[in-house]
Amino acid sequence: MKRKICVVVTARPSYSRIKTALSAIKNHPDLELQLVVAASALLDRYGSAVQTIERDGFQIAAKVFNVLEGENLTAAAKTTGIGILELSTVFDNLNPDVVVTIADRFETMATAVAASYMNIPLAHIQGGEVTGNIDEKVRHSITKLADYHFVASEDAKKRVLALGENPDYVFNTGCPSIDLAKKIVNYPSLDFDPITKYGGVGGDPNIKQGYWVVMQHPVTTEVSQSRHHIEESLKAMHEMNQPVLWFWPNVDAGADGTSTGIRSFREKNDLNQFHFFKNMDPLDFLKLLYHSKGLIGNSSVGIRECAFLGVPVVNIGTRQNRRARGNNVIDVNYSKSEILAALRSISESPRPISSDVYGGGDAGFQIANLLAELPLVYHKTITL
Amino acid sequence: MKRKICVVVTARPSYSRIKTALSAIKNHPDLELQLVVAASALLDRYGSAVQTIERDGFQIAAKVFNVLEGENLTAAAKTTGIGILELSTVFDNLNPDVVVTIADRFETMATAVAASYMNIPLAHIQGGEVTGNIDEKVRHSITKLADYHFVASEDAKKRVLALGENPDYVFNTGCPSIDLAKKIVNYPSLDFDPITKYGGVGGDPNIKQGYWVVMQHPVTTEVSQSRHHIEESLKAMHEMNQPVLWFWPNVDAGADGTSTGIRSFREKNDLNQFHFFKNMDPLDFLKLLYHSKGLIGNSSVGIRECAFLGVPVVNIGTRQNRRARGNNVIDVNYSKSEILAALRSISESPRPISSDVYGGGDAGFQIANLLAELPLVYHKTITL
Amino acid sequence: MKRKICVVVTARPSYSRIKTALSAIKNHPDLELQLVVAASALLDRYGSAVQTIERDGFQIAAKVFNVLEGENLTAAAKTTGIGILELSTVFDNLNPDVVVTIADRFETMATAVAASYMNIPLAHIQGGEVTGNIDEKVRHSITKLADYHFVASEDAKKRVLALGENPDYVFNTGCPSIDLAKKIVNYPSLDFDPITKYGGVGGDPNIKQGYWVVMQHPVTTEVSQSRHHIEESLKAMHEMNQPVLWFWPNVDAGADGTSTGIRSFREKNDLNQFHFFKNMDPLDFLKLLYHSKGLIGNSSVGIRECAFLGVPVVNIGTRQNRRARGNNVIDVNYSKSEILAALRSISESPRPISSDVYGGGDAGFQIANLLAELPLVYHKTITL
Amino acid sequence: MKRKICVVVTARPSYSRIKTALSAIKNHPDLELQLVVAASALLDRYGSAVQTIERDGFQIAAKVFNVLEGENLTAAAKTTGIGILELSTVFDNLNPDVVVTIADRFETMATAVAASYMNIPLAHIQGGEVTGNIDEKVRHSITKLADYHFVASEDAKKRVLALGENPDYVFNTGCPSIDLAKKIVNYPSLDFDPITKYGGVGGDPNIKQGYWVVMQHPVTTEVSQSRHHIEESLKAMHEMNQPVLWFWPNVDAGADGTSTGIRSFREKNDLNQFHFFKNMDPLDFLKLLYHSKGLIGNSSVGIRECAFLGVPVVNIGTRQNRRARGNNVIDVNYSKSEILAALRSISESPRPISSDVYGGGDAGFQIANLLAELPLVYHKTITL
Repeated sequence: MKRKICVVVTARPSYSRIKTALSAIKNHPDLELQLVVAASALLDRYGSAVQTIERDGFQIAAKVFNVLEGENLTAAAKTTGIGILELSTVFDNLNPDVVVTIADRFETMATAVAASYMNIPLAHIQGGEVTGNIDEKVRHSITKLADYHFVASEDAKKRVLALGENPDYVFNTGCPSIDLAKKIVNYPSLDFDPITKYGGVGGDPNIKQGYWVVMQHPVTTEVSQSRHHIEESLKAMHEMNQPVLWFWPNVDAGADGTSTGIRSFREKNDLNQFHFFKNMDPLDFLKLLYHSKGLIGNSSVGIRECAFLGVPVVNIGTRQNRRARGNNVIDVNYSKSEILAALRSISESPRPISSDVYGGGDAGFQIANLLAELPLVYHKTITL
Repeated sequence: MKRKICVVVTARPSYSRIKTALSAIKNHPDLELQLVVAASALLDRYGSAVQTIERDGFQIAAKVFNVLEGENLTAAAKTTGIGILELSTVFDNLNPDVVVTIADRFETMATAVAASYMNIPLAHIQGGEVTGNIDEKVRHSITKLADYHFVASEDAKKRVLALGENPDYVFNTGCPSIDLAKKIVNYPSLDFDPITKYGGVGGDPNIKQGYWVVMQHPVTTEVSQSRHHIEESLKAMHEMNQPVLWFWPNVDAGADGTSTGIRSFREKNDLNQFHFFKNMDPLDFLKLLYHSKGLIGNSSVGIRECAFLGVPVVNIGTRQNRRARGNNVIDVNYSKSEILAALRSISESPRPISSDVYGGGDAGFQIANLLAELPLVYHKTITL
Repeated sequence: MKRKICVVVTARPSYSRIKTALSAIKNHPDLELQLVVAASALLDRYGSAVQTIERDGFQIAAKVFNVLEGENLTAAAKTTGIGILELSTVFDNLNPDVVVTIADRFETMATAVAASYMNIPLAHIQGGEVTGNIDEKVRHSITKLADYHFVASEDAKKRVLALGENPDYVFNTGCPSIDLAKKIVNYPSLDFDPITKYGGVGGDPNIKQGYWVVMQHPVTTEVSQSRHHIEESLKAMHEMNQPVLWFWPNVDAGADGTSTGIRSFREKNDLNQFHFFKNMDPLDFLKLLYHSKGLIGNSSVGIRECAFLGVPVVNIGTRQNRRARGNNVIDVNYSKSEILAALRSISESPRPISSDVYGGGDAGFQIANLLAELPLVYHKTITL
Repeated sequence: MKRKICVVVTARPSYSRIKTALSAIKNHPDLELQLVVAASALLDRYGSAVQTIERDGFQIAAKVFNVLEGENLTAAAKTTGIGILELSTVFDNLNPDVVVTIADRFETMATAVAASYMNIPLAHIQGGEVTGNIDEKVRHSITKLADYHFVASEDAKKRVLALGENPDYVFNTGCPSIDLAKKIVNYPSLDFDPITKYGGVGGDPNIKQGYWVVMQHPVTTEVSQSRHHIEESLKAMHEMNQPVLWFWPNVDAGADGTSTGIRSFREKNDLNQFHFFKNMDPLDFLKLLYHSKGLIGNSSVGIRECAFLGVPVVNIGTRQNRRARGNNVIDVNYSKSEILAALRSISESPRPISSDVYGGGDAGFQIANLLAELPLVYHKTITL
């Protein structure tokens, strides 16, 4: 009988990151994939990842709407509570052999608590990294609930072991997001027009001569400043006066500040060099990055995929704090002038060399194999 | 303005453990106590801790019924989910400066998730200990969410630091349960009749010549064997044929097996040396232990209070696995013969010497002072 | 394509009542049965209806644990809230064409709210009856949410129409419980030994010479008196000193008083003529009634099945207040002496004649046909 | 001791409607007001009624965030489930003598279920009206749960009685919204500039020479057409080419279609005669209506307050279907041409005469007095 592997996807970026692992699980002869889609991955205003997932040919075993409205911290907590309540029922009905939770978004704790409390072996993807905000509390907390750890770098592996986890169950598989990135490194040029294909709103800049990509999320511990933070970036990009493709933020406490900041800036300024997107097929997004002048913001894509792809990154603020990085990243504060300085430095430098700090592109394959072969365990004790 | 300290009590044993800290917070000139009572602490069949709490003179700021029926693992997960959902509302309405969560019962995770997600500084009492079951996952997971750590032993302190917590916020206060124990070490004899005062069911053994106390909880990772486990203890105590005062187990996955085992054994055997209690005032319970021949089971009381009180303990099975202990404990497996051998060894040995491995009796006082003085922080990063 | 009919069963007695409709739906060529089992139907201490359901060969599409512990009124409300939350997810995933809710237990409101809010046509079985407690509020309230009404008597039909429902969608199918009863009217004698087959606890009365059956539930508006109420019945049956087969009550606010009353009476009295059961296969239960001297209590079985079977009933208190009844029922107050008088009257009278006030035994068949043929509607307006 | 009256406000329009009753309760010597604010009344994007409430000097006893994101029907059901779960806790902690629920929005069912299940006497304001969509199911369903009925018209009173409610507890108090309307009938002219005072977005039409007000909500049973519906109104008002003050819709399933329709129309058309508002102080809103040329849309304000104020109304579609109305209303379909014809007819006719079909302006006062004097009951039986 096949092992039933239940993967819970709660957000668009998590799906992009896990996609090759999902395919590898689905295609593994000894595994059956049970895909659960929940939280913002189901919602229109965060890009309806669920539609992409279905278009990609994955069957969905259950959908769970659990995002409580408010976009404040109370809502984040309650979303997690509802998630536990409902995922418990889902797990009880699907009866999986292993549950997989991805990374460190607040609502992934729901998957981790439900599975570990129900004595279902829990695999955690991308533990051990350091970023210095609520994500970090969540990430390490999930590490202490998880039975298997599929980490993305040597640095992360060391840290998970230092946290007292059993070395038999800690594996540096690299990040599955690199698997996707690997597929597009040979594309000589952008093979689609992003505005035609994805719509969005804003101006119609000429991207033929190069363009920047921006993706900046609110930081949950700095909610009250999210509007100021986004404005510094908006001003910098506006002053740079070159084509900009801008992506809307995740659902997170603080997104209102970020969104409001963007809307208000648009109303007051003539942004004909800016175009705004809600979401994009992950592969297209990577192509877009690969052929861009660089990525600006605080997305982990800048740290991971861009390291492998050799794309320059202006990493703003604290969100990616202590994550291992390649030499493609320039770190700056929330500051128009620092951002501008970094953009100019990138413009004048050669393209960074590719780095395998987050893996070599076979993470999905390794993860599926491990899920098929590891003994099923849910009882552990700390090694410290 | 006084700091508002919100303590969430979810079970009878947690209340006993935290009581002196509650009093110290209540009486501290710079603190205001916001006491929330939830989960099994509200339920009749787990001894209605809430009534004791009110009788002890504490005002209750909010009650939250969140125990989902089932006494299986799914119910434990769902209880935790409901807890997060509702405690978020409670915290939003009470607006505390610090939230305090106690120990490692599954539902304490609800307090920890709600507070940490809402950026309310979280204090955790009794982290860092090792027991080797789901409690341990919960305990270390809460450590990674908590901002302040008030641990109960040097061993625990070392482990919390090893987990990468900031040394400025890790304190070995000792266990507040020892504060209570300290109050009764001078009582020359039992000053109440437990059956008269607390009712209960079963025989009416003559405890004047000595008696044993039993308190054995189901172990969440060994649910299917909980009935077998309790039967070995029942058989051993039955064969010993001396007065036994037996306490019903906590609400936990597996309690049905334990309860059913006890009920069924009672129906089939003449247990006139046994008397069964649902609960007891914490101080009376300590007196009962202090004057007993010894405690049998897997309660942490055996490891903590009994160390300080010098009460012999037969500790059964894995539940207290790797917790630091005094020299009062004999560890045995779920085995009638091993239990009997331990009982005989105790009967033939002198009373153990008191140990301060879990503190010297001023933990509540230390905790209140720290809560009044520590800077309010909710942002942390791992030191590893 | 077959119509998907989702039936939500939340309690053991509802299952007994609906069973023939479930079979008829399952076997109908144009229907697909989606059976959801929830609430006390999943719980051990209410007789695990779920096991009977599976043994009867029904496939379960989803299980939902939603009983909040407390057995008080707050818990009943919260159980309903959790039910709505989770059943919405279940309906969203199963995507039924019609949802069926049964009768008037408090938690059936969850089915009704979830389905009607999601614009899924809702069929209500057994609306229109009158009992005069919270069940009645629930029942009529569900009538106002439901799109189709399958009522059990002419009296009920008149009332549903008087409530302003569209006559095109109100049908007196009779009660499906009568379908079951019809199957056993020809059994000449009890063909099983209830104690051997179902265990239970208590004495071993000799039932060969006749026996009484007791089934008495707490009444939600009279919670505080539930213990007194059950004690009158216990005393009466004790004084009668004839074999008694006693069934434990439903999960309801007040069950604790009822259960405690029974336990305490057992401890204080020698009840060797009493045997207690948790539950029984519905068919066996009907056989047991059919061959009994009579039923005592407040179960609706006395009003319905016993009318058809011609079994004498002592109906105690307010719970079945204004329900239509055959001539088999003697109504009494919560009073030992009134109960005893009724028992004696029954002992001295001939067996009542069968009545079809609750239908002729083809309700399940009629319901399935209607579900297959009715137009799918979820929009209505009051006719008043 | 004062009677504790707990009123649950879940949306901006409900607050406007109930405001004078809240004041009358607050000021009544025998009553204590416990105000609970929940659901969309707490959310920014529905106009933060909570801020208005606090500014108006009401103290809030508890806030409950329970709106599940999705703006689809599943989310409406789940919002109600979460509401029950949390309001139960709130009621358990506040311990009110009476709970008051307002009108017929889907989430008001949560208040009704929680209170009635907890045996707290439930007062329902504005039952008995007919509109012909899910609101109607909810409204009549709440009538069957409620113990006291404070209805707004004779027509509604007749219907509540026809539903089998006890005449002793059914009162035509008129609608408290008329109380507010009464306060402004003597204002000779608009005493504030709406755009200056309330901001909003859009053009800056000259309203000195008259203006129209539009308020059109999605209809829950016609979700898929909500975009088409709003577009007909947009086109009509655009073609009319006179100043329009337009209010955003409620949070309801379908709001996305309505909102998207408005946004998209704005992007494609030059709407310099339109100005859009999120919300307005209720009194200011009434003044705005009183001095307008007329109201267009499907808000119940058109049926109620505008009847009393003598403001012409173009009532579009099915939402106010069978509600009693004054002679100020012209009913039309979702049709540009019908709307235009009605606007022209209004422009050419004299102002309608004031009607007291929804009361004479002392509803709040009557309601408070009844709440102080009615016997406390929660047990009822149908009179049919």
